[in-house]
Amino acid sequence: MHSTNAPENSTATVEKGIPLTRSGNLLTDVPLPAAVIFEAPLAHNLAWMQRFADGHGAKLAPHGKTTMTPALFRRQIEAGAWGITLATAVQTVAAHAHGIDRVLMVNQLVGRPNMALVADAIKTGLEYYCVVDGVDNVRDLGAFFAERGLTLNVMIELGIDGGRCGCRNAEQVETLVTAIAAQPSLALVGIEGYEGMIAGGDEVASVRAYGERLVETVRTLRASGVLEREAPIVTASGSKWFDLIAEAFDKAELREHYTPVLRPGCYVVHDHKLYAGAMDAVKARDPKLEGELQPALEVFAHVQSLPEPGLAIIALGKRDIGHEPDLPLPLRLYSLHESLHGESVASSDISAWRTTNIMDQHVFLEIPEHAEIAVGDVIAFGTSHPCLTFDKWRRMLLVDKQLAVVEVLETCF
Amino acid sequence: MHSTNAPENSTATVEKGIPLTRSGNLLTDVPLPAAVIFEAPLAHNLAWMQRFADGHGAKLAPHGKTTMTPALFRRQIEAGAWGITLATAVQTVAAHAHGIDRVLMVNQLVGRPNMALVADAIKTGLEYYCVVDGVDNVRDLGAFFAERGLTLNVMIELGIDGGRCGCRNAEQVETLVTAIAAQPSLALVGIEGYEGMIAGGDEVASVRAYGERLVETVRTLRASGVLEREAPIVTASGSKWFDLIAEAFDKAELREHYTPVLRPGCYVVHDHKLYAGAMDAVKARDPKLEGELQPALEVFAHVQSLPEPGLAIIALGKRDIGHEPDLPLPLRLYSLHESLHGESVASSDISAWRTTNIMDQHVFLEIPEHAEIAVGDVIAFGTSHPCLTFDKWRRMLLVDKQLAVVEVLETCF
Repeated sequence: MHSTNAPENSTATVEKGIPLTRSGNLLTDVPLPAAVIFEAPLAHNLAWMQRFADGHGAKLAPHGKTTMTPALFRRQIEAGAWGITLATAVQTVAAHAHGIDRVLMVNQLVGRPNMALVADAIKTGLEYYCVVDGVDNVRDLGAFFAERGLTLNVMIELGIDGGRCGCRNAEQVETLVTAIAAQPSLALVGIEGYEGMIAGGDEVASVRAYGERLVETVRTLRASGVLEREAPIVTASGSKWFDLIAEAFDKAELREHYTPVLRPGCYVVHDHKLYAGAMDAVKARDPKLEGELQPALEVFAHVQSLPEPGLAIIALGKRDIGHEPDLPLPLRLYSLHESLHGESVASSDISAWRTTNIMDQHVFLEIPEHAEIAVGDVIAFGTSHPCLTFDKWRRMLLVDKQLAVVEVLETCF
Repeated sequence: MHSTNAPENSTATVEKGIPLTRSGNLLTDVPLPAAVIFEAPLAHNLAWMQRFADGHGAKLAPHGKTTMTPALFRRQIEAGAWGITLATAVQTVAAHAHGIDRVLMVNQLVGRPNMALVADAIKTGLEYYCVVDGVDNVRDLGAFFAERGLTLNVMIELGIDGGRCGCRNAEQVETLVTAIAAQPSLALVGIEGYEGMIAGGDEVASVRAYGERLVETVRTLRASGVLEREAPIVTASGSKWFDLIAEAFDKAELREHYTPVLRPGCYVVHDHKLYAGAMDAVKARDPKLEGELQPALEVFAHVQSLPEPGLAIIALGKRDIGHEPDLPLPLRLYSLHESLHGESVASSDISAWRTTNIMDQHVFLEIPEHAEIAVGDVIAFGTSHPCLTFDKWRRMLLVDKQLAVVEVLETCF
């Protein structure tokens, strides 16, 4: 049943979301579904967040796990970012292989094969930082990197009770400082935290307090002389509370003697609901803030079937688009069946329609009973939280306003 | 910040889940997390389901969207499968590019670029079938394939009220038959259905009735002379009710004059909960059934942090493993920190432990307060529904009982 001469390396030509012609139009030349990034809001977001960090005297190291798209990492660096934040060793070496030379890995580095990957990257010029929150890991890292004759930069992670990783209190930090000092191959260079685990009660006050605790901790360590860096790093911030962390870090003393680093990731393409709401909250906290992030990521898909009045089945599923915390958000309908041969197609706003279910390869869309819609029409969907849409694609399409494909962006998940 | 001479094609060496050495061991030579398939249960499942289909006089066309792994498609064909079932045009051409010559695409084929992909595959030898459930699609397909001078095999999809795609009643089927007859480029060759949407009430009785409805429909169409195939196709079945559909199809008349086709997909690696439960139900319905499917898919990951008593954070997340309908299931703990240099490592059963949360890159595991566990230890997780684990990986590792990597299996999502 299968040909023995089948080409083994032909997947590149048949992966989903690739235009049939490199300079094609999204509606006529791309086998849908396809994930697209609009170039204008992307450029806007890159500039906006860099300006925001600059304005607070902070460096920007965007979390790269959001996109794992080297072409976007490069744009972030070109816009002024100090480095890229990542979550794992494999993400780190993938970014380094694509030209990123400074990585904050905001997790403990565990497992000898992962350590070996990082050691090789350091040897070939990567400026690398990871975090530690336990003495076992400090001992393992110390032994491994001593064996390799390398120095590993580490930051102590500060966590919160009931949170994720990180030291819960000052005693644990002290214990770690002592453990790190006993490992000549480890250089303690700063403090890392993640405020995104804070939930419940007065969250704004809690995030502010956490930001101050990070600043106090790095000050204390610097004063005690245990930090092996002229301008020690203090870093935190996801994509929701970046403004509060920036305020906590925005001090003359930090600008002069430290390296404060913000790490939002989702900002680069933003979204249509979760972070759109977070942006509204940022603006409410600072009415003088200029401009705002704009949604840049959408997924285009065909109407697959119209089996009953009021129901459209879309050729799009969990394999193609994130569905948490909200199901995909219908934005615009392109009446493509009226225009099979490529004329420009008008779109209508369908943001009042509602996704009711999603399966591996299908989305269920509740539509008005007499909606003008046909099988073969195209719908653009937005997302709530962009991270889990990127990882569904090996390639994303950068498009202009006219939906012409400007560039094919490879991901490296 | 980024080197202009960065290698652009180097991702192959840094993708997640790849062993540092081709013949490595999972615990010592692979940067975890990694998704693995155990070769013995895989071989068992391939043979078991083929024997099951054979025993009921049915062909097997496993749903390939589960794995999108050509090396598994090949094993399924070698075990006796008649073809591979797929969900989209891009999946179809990816499978064909890897040597699969017969594909049932159990969705409407929509969009000219998707039609063009399929037309090219048919021209290069693919035996292809898709489904139709609406006259607009019939008209579009008829025009497109006539233009190309090709014949397209179509099956009418039979759906259920409140379900997904497919005709709801006999009148719709009749209308479609007429519409297809008006398109010389379309060949109506059978009836397709999917019983997996049936939920509520006496599900077993409803699935049986649906199976009979499929059989009656194909009989009626055959008798009326509208089917352009000596042995028309009648096909259904997901991975939960395949036994009931097999029973509905298991008739001397169908064996002789039709092509009954079963399409389960998840069976190939089975799972540790959802389909494990479905298997129990299959066995309960037929106590004489020999043997059963065995779970073959696991994801291995490191203990990342032990920040509080009773809590382990695992270096594994939504990017690495499915989490619906159930969170990842802890199976075994390998005390790797006791054995950093590769001696064989004993494992302990931790299936009583419980995953309480999952984020993009982290799993929260509730553990006994005095559990013997350390950062760097490895945990094997099972899944509930395998499909949404496969699509997180570009490569899966086939391993033997000793966790030696036997083969690296590429996926083509």
